[in-house]
Amino acid sequence: MPPRPPRPSRHWQSKRRTQRGYAARGETRRGAPGDAAILYGWHTVTAALNNPARRIRRLLATENAVRRLTDEGITLPVTPELVRPDALAAQLTPDAVHQGLLAEADPLSAPAIEELPDDGIVLVLDQITDPHNVGAILRTAAAFAVGAIVTTARHGPDATGVLAKSASGALELVPIVLVQNLARALAALKARGFFLVGLDSAAPDDLAALDLHAPLALVLGAEGKGLRQLTGATCDRLARLALPGAIKSLNVSNAAALALYIARRAIS
Amino acid sequence: MPPRPPRPSRHWQSKRRTQRGYAARGETRRGAPGDAAILYGWHTVTAALNNPARRIRRLLATENAVRRLTDEGITLPVTPELVRPDALAAQLTPDAVHQGLLAEADPLSAPAIEELPDDGIVLVLDQITDPHNVGAILRTAAAFAVGAIVTTARHGPDATGVLAKSASGALELVPIVLVQNLARALAALKARGFFLVGLDSAAPDDLAALDLHAPLALVLGAEGKGLRQLTGATCDRLARLALPGAIKSLNVSNAAALALYIARRAIS
Repeated sequence: MPPRPPRPSRHWQSKRRTQRGYAARGETRRGAPGDAAILYGWHTVTAALNNPARRIRRLLATENAVRRLTDEGITLPVTPELVRPDALAAQLTPDAVHQGLLAEADPLSAPAIEELPDDGIVLVLDQITDPHNVGAILRTAAAFAVGAIVTTARHGPDATGVLAKSASGALELVPIVLVQNLARALAALKARGFFLVGLDSAAPDDLAALDLHAPLALVLGAEGKGLRQLTGATCDRLARLALPGAIKSLNVSNAAALALYIARRAIS
Repeated sequence: MPPRPPRPSRHWQSKRRTQRGYAARGETRRGAPGDAAILYGWHTVTAALNNPARRIRRLLATENAVRRLTDEGITLPVTPELVRPDALAAQLTPDAVHQGLLAEADPLSAPAIEELPDDGIVLVLDQITDPHNVGAILRTAAAFAVGAIVTTARHGPDATGVLAKSASGALELVPIVLVQNLARALAALKARGFFLVGLDSAAPDDLAALDLHAPLALVLGAEGKGLRQLTGATCDRLARLALPGAIKSLNVSNAAALALYIARRAIS
């Protein structure tokens, strides 16, 4: 028989939080509330509950969700606060699918560039901020056993809310290394032996034709803007994805998926 | 010198449309408004303007956008109605990036299954409805020269709004064939010689190891739910994507991108 979670406290709705819910305060805005990561959705929250490195501050759950957590034998680090589904929904944006679970947690700490394993692949994101895209990239990164995602603290994504939901648990698996200056971070990766390859749809070389080798850093820019000039100049090579059709650029998470597939085939 | 577009009419804001904007009426809901496709964003609208098969009913544009259309020599089929950026924004959801352009257009007509070219790849979507995902799939389909997307009229996506924006012009390039019954549509594809391969993360075979050949139909199900039982049973083969990491399923548009890359390498 699975261990029982702590008995949930009754907590139908916190007035303060209803009036000033996560949605109203900007669900993915840095610094809100009190720098907590807001995690919702079954995969996202249970992955956090199963991550020993993640400190959960509060867990809000519907009766159904508490029952499912019990059934699956998931150990709860805090007593869940029992809420109704509509009270959870009121905390989030209208299209958020919470599946009865919402957690407030400490952000995860991340390793420094110098601490990253130098035998695999890292992804470097240059000012990619859309949380759906960054979440999908995290999920795909976890599927391809990427060692870390490196991105800038400013003009970078927030590891909470929609991003965490889109990552479907991958936020607990792939560390996000936030740096002040991306060109300096790339130089630090290069100093550690990483081969730096930037994706650029205008580059003459096809990524699949390059001699890729580990450790490898794949560098992606935002849609429309692409890599910033200094980012591109700091890469060892620029390469494009070979696309035979009429459109020559992809959604950035789709581009990341293809680049990771190509890189993993070359260096695994 | 590029041809001048028709002189724009002054139309700062239509009161009726402000009160009952596309966002309020459900931007991507089938049937609203009057079955028009709502297209916004530079790539999405200019691709529609450049598509001779697309009938534009109205074009709302900011002064800047009209100037840019003129500079790029894009022929306008209707006189643009000049609007301010905030009036455009008021018509759409808060996070919609309209880039000064919004068009109401007739939906595109699509070929029947029997009319699809039988020398390439088609994608079949089984109840995938998220407009960001379907838009990204359309864009990637255009990048891989996919002949058509086949999906159900019910529980299917609407070719408007967020989907059109995410498709970044691909809506004008890849026909969407809406069918009443997906299993019957798959049978019709099979009768035309298509090899039907369904993606299933639990399948034993790796897609890249299959002997793929044209004409090929790649069949994808919704995240979480996967292929419906009858859909899977109608496929010739089921296959998974080989993912070496801790997460074994991808965002559906990322999965579509990988499947298309693998298929295109095998049969081009």
